[in-house]
Amino acid sequence: MSKTDGEIVEKRDVNRNIKGLLKPENITIIGASNDPEKISGRPVEYLKRYGFKGEIYPVNPKYEYVQNIKAFKDIKEVPNDLDLVIIAIAAKHVIKTLEICVEKNVKSCMIFSSGFAEMNNEGEALQKEISRIAKDSGMVVVGPNCQGVANFENKSIASFSTAFVEGDLKTGSSAILSQSGAVAAMIYSMQTDNGTGAKYWASTGNEEDLNTAQLAKYILETDENVNVIQMYIESIDSDKDMIELGKQSQKKDKPVLVLKAGRSDEAQKAASSHTGALAAEDNIVDNFLKKYGFLRVNDVKELSSFSNVFKLSKKTKGKNVAIISNSGGLGVMMVDKCKEYGLNIANFTSETKEKLSEILPQFASCENPIDITAQLLNDKHLLSDALPILMKDPNVDTILFGLGIIGKGYDIDSILNDIINSQQAGDKMVGVAWVGSEKGRIKELNENNVPAFEDPSLCIKAMSKYTEYCLSNTEAIKESSEEQKDRKKNSFNNLLQTHNGFLSENDSKFLLKEALPVPKSMLFTNEEEIKQSAPNLEYPVVMKINSAEIQHKTEVEGVKLNISNEEELLESFSKMKNNNNFYKKNKSIEVLVEKMAPSGLEISLGFKNDPVFGPVVMVGSGGIYIEILKDFQLLMPPLSFREINKAIDSLAIQPILQGTRGERAKDKKALCNIIMDFSNFVIEYQDDIEEIDINPVIVHEEGQGVTLVDALIKLKEGK
Amino acid sequence: MSKTDGEIVEKRDVNRNIKGLLKPENITIIGASNDPEKISGRPVEYLKRYGFKGEIYPVNPKYEYVQNIKAFKDIKEVPNDLDLVIIAIAAKHVIKTLEICVEKNVKSCMIFSSGFAEMNNEGEALQKEISRIAKDSGMVVVGPNCQGVANFENKSIASFSTAFVEGDLKTGSSAILSQSGAVAAMIYSMQTDNGTGAKYWASTGNEEDLNTAQLAKYILETDENVNVIQMYIESIDSDKDMIELGKQSQKKDKPVLVLKAGRSDEAQKAASSHTGALAAEDNIVDNFLKKYGFLRVNDVKELSSFSNVFKLSKKTKGKNVAIISNSGGLGVMMVDKCKEYGLNIANFTSETKEKLSEILPQFASCENPIDITAQLLNDKHLLSDALPILMKDPNVDTILFGLGIIGKGYDIDSILNDIINSQQAGDKMVGVAWVGSEKGRIKELNENNVPAFEDPSLCIKAMSKYTEYCLSNTEAIKESSEEQKDRKKNSFNNLLQTHNGFLSENDSKFLLKEALPVPKSMLFTNEEEIKQSAPNLEYPVVMKINSAEIQHKTEVEGVKLNISNEEELLESFSKMKNNNNFYKKNKSIEVLVEKMAPSGLEISLGFKNDPVFGPVVMVGSGGIYIEILKDFQLLMPPLSFREINKAIDSLAIQPILQGTRGERAKDKKALCNIIMDFSNFVIEYQDDIEEIDINPVIVHEEGQGVTLVDALIKLKEGK
Repeated sequence: MSKTDGEIVEKRDVNRNIKGLLKPENITIIGASNDPEKISGRPVEYLKRYGFKGEIYPVNPKYEYVQNIKAFKDIKEVPNDLDLVIIAIAAKHVIKTLEICVEKNVKSCMIFSSGFAEMNNEGEALQKEISRIAKDSGMVVVGPNCQGVANFENKSIASFSTAFVEGDLKTGSSAILSQSGAVAAMIYSMQTDNGTGAKYWASTGNEEDLNTAQLAKYILETDENVNVIQMYIESIDSDKDMIELGKQSQKKDKPVLVLKAGRSDEAQKAASSHTGALAAEDNIVDNFLKKYGFLRVNDVKELSSFSNVFKLSKKTKGKNVAIISNSGGLGVMMVDKCKEYGLNIANFTSETKEKLSEILPQFASCENPIDITAQLLNDKHLLSDALPILMKDPNVDTILFGLGIIGKGYDIDSILNDIINSQQAGDKMVGVAWVGSEKGRIKELNENNVPAFEDPSLCIKAMSKYTEYCLSNTEAIKESSEEQKDRKKNSFNNLLQTHNGFLSENDSKFLLKEALPVPKSMLFTNEEEIKQSAPNLEYPVVMKINSAEIQHKTEVEGVKLNISNEEELLESFSKMKNNNNFYKKNKSIEVLVEKMAPSGLEISLGFKNDPVFGPVVMVGSGGIYIEILKDFQLLMPPLSFREINKAIDSLAIQPILQGTRGERAKDKKALCNIIMDFSNFVIEYQDDIEEIDINPVIVHEEGQGVTLVDALIKLKEGK
Repeated sequence: MSKTDGEIVEKRDVNRNIKGLLKPENITIIGASNDPEKISGRPVEYLKRYGFKGEIYPVNPKYEYVQNIKAFKDIKEVPNDLDLVIIAIAAKHVIKTLEICVEKNVKSCMIFSSGFAEMNNEGEALQKEISRIAKDSGMVVVGPNCQGVANFENKSIASFSTAFVEGDLKTGSSAILSQSGAVAAMIYSMQTDNGTGAKYWASTGNEEDLNTAQLAKYILETDENVNVIQMYIESIDSDKDMIELGKQSQKKDKPVLVLKAGRSDEAQKAASSHTGALAAEDNIVDNFLKKYGFLRVNDVKELSSFSNVFKLSKKTKGKNVAIISNSGGLGVMMVDKCKEYGLNIANFTSETKEKLSEILPQFASCENPIDITAQLLNDKHLLSDALPILMKDPNVDTILFGLGIIGKGYDIDSILNDIINSQQAGDKMVGVAWVGSEKGRIKELNENNVPAFEDPSLCIKAMSKYTEYCLSNTEAIKESSEEQKDRKKNSFNNLLQTHNGFLSENDSKFLLKEALPVPKSMLFTNEEEIKQSAPNLEYPVVMKINSAEIQHKTEVEGVKLNISNEEELLESFSKMKNNNNFYKKNKSIEVLVEKMAPSGLEISLGFKNDPVFGPVVMVGSGGIYIEILKDFQLLMPPLSFREINKAIDSLAIQPILQGTRGERAKDKKALCNIIMDFSNFVIEYQDDIEEIDINPVIVHEEGQGVTLVDALIKLKEGK
């Protein structure tokens, strides 16, 4: 998909055309079949059976009537002002048909046909034609290789998905948008079962023109009754559309759940510097989604069931959970899961405990988790008595029911009533985990806006994610100043003329010096120069081989630490000169001499240019630990101090920075500052530099700043 | 529960008595109610309805018949040779009834009654009486506060659990054994739904006498038709019984799945040295379970659904998985999950690919994952054609089906048939993930020994755990030599006389010297001593304050590194002497001087005495990183080199040990050796020492050995 799509969409009347797709007043099916079980027959059958109120125009030269609806021989005969045309004919005829649609000023088309980019190169070329037509005309196109779009409110089930073969439509307040038709069907099927339903459903297939992000943005803009977007995507082709959607989601305060598949499939590009090796593409996706406020989920089960909670208008006010269960064991397990997912176990006030002890059986626990025991069998009022007490406790934000109700004997109607009433009446969030629930009861709870789950782990994970969402503040995204971008770099242009690919450490630092506090250093190429400078050096010093061809100096014994005097300096230089590891092509060597940096916490700072997302800054554990521990965070410039602080606080080594085990706190402020400077630097140089690796950055004690010990820059190809 | 239970059980005829409990020929219900919905009425109703073939003896002075069965006024009137007596009367009458049971030589009793240790101190005292009676008599007792025991084969449903209120018994090849009755009911209910069922079911409650581990061991010993044990436990009171069960499980090659709740509830004991702080009780449990071959699961869903796979007799031969799906999206997600859980995506042979390409549709993928596309709708032979090809591929060990079949249109009977046949005929493991499955179909698959799951993530996690189980070798548990234990320690006895609690670094090392290579060191208490020795020291050296009262020397500035000569030695000594951090009570100080250790990888080695499990050895990342990274492994001595090697290889820092980024490999062999020596040392001293913390152990390059830089020993109280 072309990167310029966003602009094109702006040129055409996108809202009018997407409206034609999502809220059509008429639907034309080209190639409509008389057989309601055929791909091209199903939309007709679905539209009829579910009661689409608009016009249905089947087009098929062979029949006068298709499934008892008057058919047209040719699309040209169909009346004008067409909102949505479904194309279900062989791939080779698609382009011609699209062109006719353009002539007829059709608002939107949908291509069910396969045989495009998913098949071979020819198909790919054919597919490109689609976007050309869409761009030139302004008509929006869904697919090819898609299963269609549905709006459950106006019953425009313009799809051939088997999800609609039977059953009633289950209307809800979410939109299911998926690149894969089968996954969209699975999600909807699960939501039909659990009572959540959906309002829109779309399978976008190859996404040659319209993508899920654009659909989602339109829905959030135009439909106040949709509270949550559920997206399944296999690739992010247009980061621009996703950013727009992210902004829209934050503006409307409507969450977007994203299931992004292919974590492991996306081969990591062979990385030539260490930042590259770590900034695996999926990590970038992860951070991109986080930055723009998307909520990433891990599988179809999460994508489907989390919407039970995220569809609610009610917000959670804090992390303190009260657990009430008729099984002590279930209560204990739910406490485990709360801790695992970052929720707190509420400390009841003494008033709460006292009142609970008055109503609960003698052997029940009045502490959190509350175990009301199997006594619930005999006394159905236990719940209706206990709930108001919890509702009044200021230390409780969320009430979770752990129901282990198996078999007959319980007055389930009364129990559910109590739970549903408490969700409606109180300002605390209420949720249910019901292991072995009675058939249909989970659905009943969800339909009454009480998020209910069969699996306690899933319940608590969903509640925790939702709480996190409710408590998080939307972070303003700062734009970088234009003047920064315009500043010209003479030093850089000079370097460009003499180098290709990697820069030496000295040249790398020379470039970075513009923005960052690199240490003072001296370059020597022979013994004479060393002897001349030796008396004035501040010992101990370090000597490093300086060469654009050597990226890993330690590996080739190109680093000598802790040199105390001139004698040792000369000895080290002589060793390097005779070192066969790098003394091959060139008779002379160049060494860099710097003062030994005082010790401190080693951090790694990096940059790479991602093909989709652009500049990415990496900060993580430094030294040798970075590759072992995978302890790093990715950030997308421009950055705010808040973002930088948050990333640093998320590192595993954060406690060391804060000072632990008698060690003093480290200079976090100085670290933040250089990351901010680095971020601005990479924005400025993103067109010229491919990767930067500064490892380690030594962070000294508070007030003592940082030292950039080593730096490696790789220029973009052709620079 | 008393630690000596195991021995008692050996004295009585445990097998005869547990047989009475699990395979009773008669069941007596004391306090039997006429009301089949009451706790004391339900067992009678269940036994009747499910068709228990043995005798039922209700005891109730008020009735002549209980639920139409002839009742007895008093237990004394019931015939002799009683296998199982259920006691469902008020707690205060329980002991007297037990005593009568002993008189009548009853084999086993089961106490439903609450009001014991779970209530208050009085109840706890009452409960202790139960084990006294059991011990003295040899009768086995389940409970109190339990929901009973069931054997689905002979229909002895001796329980009041609501799990049996309705429905048919679902007999399977697993045993569900749980401390919590509600959890046992949930697990059984889930397994009734998914077709797995169970053969035994037990809720053991307060476990004053018999525990789940003893029941499990008996079942594995006596019933070849049980293939898997499913245990829910909240505490491990007798590690001895668990060890016996572990050995039995390994001997019979029958897996034991364990859900241990209360990970977070168990408060970590305030740890006074760092090993203690890290060896959180739950980690010890985790390692204990691992050591004895138990498979720990995370929640009820896993405990229940994993048995779909673990109940099979068929074994998995390798980690290579072929994925075949009718949805490309589902296939991609399953690949992600395989990678996440450690399974490989099989590389098909070229023969396989060729043959697949002949039968699959043009736009389908013949690579792994195979996407047979929605074409499955039109061509039901796709599966039966593709399966034999995969079955012949030597690169494939397991075949997983990803079914995204929603709605009508598919010939599901034919698809399921193909899958079931392939599981029965072939030697490869076959499994199914079926999102949005048709009602009852998952059950059908499981009943035919094809593990089937609604949730693809759960399916792949279960398959991965099972593969791991099948591929793992049972590790022989070495016993430590008796002579080691007998060796006397003069040096230690001397120390004991003068110290209490912590030992100084010097004393700690003095003690460790017996087993481990501690560095040479000198102790100084004044300037004169320093001056005398200074010329003969090998510089640079380190000076450390030596005091039993100072455990964290760095925090109080009690360590000076890199001392190069006499002058610096004296300066450091003077500073320490004037250091107010520790120069308070005592006019004189003592310092330890050692040669600076060469650099290397820092490892931490520790020991603590766990109240349940005894001596535990910890090995992990050293230095300041240990607390941050939680990168450590726990081991239970005696150790084999294989165990030690495996633990070291599981550390995050393992690659550093192996040599990475141009660094040389470290002396892993030397590290293994000192861990072995350390393990033997702690076995010897476990009665005297509470905790040991050796941090860091510096591991030098290969062949250069290790240095034990610092050591801290805490003696047991009263020693």
